Amino acid sequence: MKPEGAVRGTFLKGRQMGLIVQKFGGSSLADPACLRRVAARVLETRRAGHDVVVVVSAMGDTTDALIELAHQVNSSPSDREMDMLMSTGEQVSVAVLSMALHVMGVEAVSLTGAQAGIRTDAAHRKAKILRVNPARIRRHLREGRIVIVAGFQGLTPLDDIATLGRGGSDTTAVALAAALRAERCQIFTDVEGVYSADPRVVPDARKLKEIAYDEMLELASLGARVLMSRSVEFAKKYGVRIEVLSSFVKAPGTLVKEEVADMEDIIVRGISADQDQVKLTIGHVPDRPGMAARIFRELAAANINIDMIVQNTSEQGITDISFTIHRDDQPRAREVLEKAARSLKVRHVNVDQDIAKVSVVGVGMRGHSGVAYRVFHALAENNINILMIATSEIKISVVVRKKLADKAMRVLHETFSLHKAPRRPAVKKGARNARKKS
Amino acid sequence: MKPEGAVRGTFLKGRQMGLIVQKFGGSSLADPACLRRVAARVLETRRAGHDVVVVVSAMGDTTDALIELAHQVNSSPSDREMDMLMSTGEQVSVAVLSMALHVMGVEAVSLTGAQAGIRTDAAHRKAKILRVNPARIRRHLREGRIVIVAGFQGLTPLDDIATLGRGGSDTTAVALAAALRAERCQIFTDVEGVYSADPRVVPDARKLKEIAYDEMLELASLGARVLMSRSVEFAKKYGVRIEVLSSFVKAPGTLVKEEVADMEDIIVRGISADQDQVKLTIGHVPDRPGMAARIFRELAAANINIDMIVQNTSEQGITDISFTIHRDDQPRAREVLEKAARSLKVRHVNVDQDIAKVSVVGVGMRGHSGVAYRVFHALAENNINILMIATSEIKISVVVRKKLADKAMRVLHETFSLHKAPRRPAVKKGARNARKKS
Repeated sequence: MKPEGAVRGTFLKGRQMGLIVQKFGGSSLADPACLRRVAARVLETRRAGHDVVVVVSAMGDTTDALIELAHQVNSSPSDREMDMLMSTGEQVSVAVLSMALHVMGVEAVSLTGAQAGIRTDAAHRKAKILRVNPARIRRHLREGRIVIVAGFQGLTPLDDIATLGRGGSDTTAVALAAALRAERCQIFTDVEGVYSADPRVVPDARKLKEIAYDEMLELASLGARVLMSRSVEFAKKYGVRIEVLSSFVKAPGTLVKEEVADMEDIIVRGISADQDQVKLTIGHVPDRPGMAARIFRELAAANINIDMIVQNTSEQGITDISFTIHRDDQPRAREVLEKAARSLKVRHVNVDQDIAKVSVVGVGMRGHSGVAYRVFHALAENNINILMIATSEIKISVVVRKKLADKAMRVLHETFSLHKAPRRPAVKKGARNARKKS
Repeated sequence: MKPEGAVRGTFLKGRQMGLIVQKFGGSSLADPACLRRVAARVLETRRAGHDVVVVVSAMGDTTDALIELAHQVNSSPSDREMDMLMSTGEQVSVAVLSMALHVMGVEAVSLTGAQAGIRTDAAHRKAKILRVNPARIRRHLREGRIVIVAGFQGLTPLDDIATLGRGGSDTTAVALAAALRAERCQIFTDVEGVYSADPRVVPDARKLKEIAYDEMLELASLGARVLMSRSVEFAKKYGVRIEVLSSFVKAPGTLVKEEVADMEDIIVRGISADQDQVKLTIGHVPDRPGMAARIFRELAAANINIDMIVQNTSEQGITDISFTIHRDDQPRAREVLEKAARSLKVRHVNVDQDIAKVSVVGVGMRGHSGVAYRVFHALAENNINILMIATSEIKISVVVRKKLADKAMRVLHETFSLHKAPRRPAVKKGARNARKKS
């Protein structure tokens, strides 16, 4: 996946110190009391001397109520009209949050996505931000106002309202932070930050002080639902520092930022599990060049994302191909494969739903050997069988039986001592200068 | 009051036959069942061969709910933010009505006021339409679509969302009909049309087939709440034919149109009563030139509209001045007057709330003498005392005691035989041609 579109000159590297973009989700805005708490939080940031741009989602379950209303009149409403309808949710939020700030005696102004200069492509319900024209926001900031922007929405080339799809308000916040060269983009959520593992599974999981974009991307796409990949990719591309923190608890969160040298001192940053995959195996594929290509071309044509792939030559001239996909894609994938199976003369397609993927992520792996061995050894010691393996430069993923996934996470968390604060060596000044010169 | 602003060349006289603008209010859109009924009505018009532009208000009590939400966070929210908030009500309506039409297999597209090209001044919550750029609506009509426009809203010169104030969706409909040169602008309401008098008071009141703009304006401003004056003024200025009809009962409504010669054959079109006035009397004003002017200048400066005025010289060099105003303006008016009374050395200010104004309206009065006499005579015969009188070219208003207002309406309705269908003489061809030549 590539970061969003061809962005114009409005996104430049470098940051405007003092400007902070804050994003609050729907659960932080569920009722007037919540709204007042958010307003107080924004005001606090303002009083600390920052310019503030706030991005908000729809209040509480507004979005669900709007979807319900739509379905009462049309069981399959058009994407364009759904966007027209759903975008009102965020518009209500910005108006009411602005009113809440006015009560506190602060100058604030609300803007729709269109008014905030957010232009998207025409892919309704999953639009991508093409560019941001921050002129109007800048003007309001110069006038000394807090600017409240409706998240999740923008204007298409045809001047229609489009929504950005899941996690869209995060993307809005990051895009605005990029366009405004904000010092920081704070994403307020219902967790206190990014953890070394899911605290519900691994009780001694630790909140991370910082994490590199690439690590966050691996964790996000692997099932740690704190930030959507799209917004992290956007942040990485434009160097936006994201802080993930709690809207309920006042505590520093996790900083998602560019990779710096000493991050590599930490080998494993975190561990995640993805329970939403299924494994498909195509048995008895004739082992001729191009067979796999044909199968995966058909799957790609049906818009099915493949995650891990393993090919196994089992008999003379015959091979098994296994791969994992999201379980939502299973019915479609099965259809495609059964059709392909007939024309390719393969014997059978097997579906295994009883799997989970557990991944160990860290940019420090690049400079350290033996990580894979430690993963496999720890799992073997604990009688956890590995069904598939995939690795990247900064990640090792294994597929295990679903019921063993939690245990695998705990074992690996322990193996890499993630419950302990990282020992960070004193900054090796000489070494870093040497690196710069090279 | 003048019709709205400096409208550009987009409003031209002459009509595009076949195009109908239909406006539906909130009570016609209260729930999904209502929405489907409205959609069916629109579709029927379309199937009869018309292009259709639909203007809608917010569904049911949405507007009240939004106001309530605002007041939960701010007891006096800013007008600009209220507009941001309230405009979502109509946006929801257009999206959902469009979806309801899609279910019926019709091409429909929803537009916000901004997308429909409606530009207003910057007077939030009571904005006036400055101009309409109908290019986008025309494009969608050419594509064969039904276009659904959010009423009550537009975009200010600063690209803020503004709402038009009471009756605003009617104004939107009329403005679009003018800009698109529509054949007709249908306003669907909870009554079946404009009546010769309020049917709740005068049981044999008759639904009018047609009424001239000026007659409708007099009736609208006199308390017949079917159409707001602003939309009628707009319609008159641009020659838009309005039809007022029921969204629940299928029957022809009342056509509000330009005055034509044979309308004058009907002397009295209708009778209305206004119970919302109070009468103020300033006693013992020195009868010197300019005294009245000074008093009314002060009232005008306080933005108080004066309706009827009577001056009565009661003693040598001393005069009483009585006038009526809307009862909502009474506290403010009293304050202004008591201040003026001191500096002008007048004795007292008297407030009489026990009054009602009953008016007889008809363009036919212009060509017929004796109407005033018939009004006064009929009321006298029935022991209804007249407290004040005011007349215009097409109207005679009398102020009576509140409890006699209903009786006065019935008496006058009977006097002018308004329960009977008008006897319309055969068109006097010669006479009309003669008029044209002159």
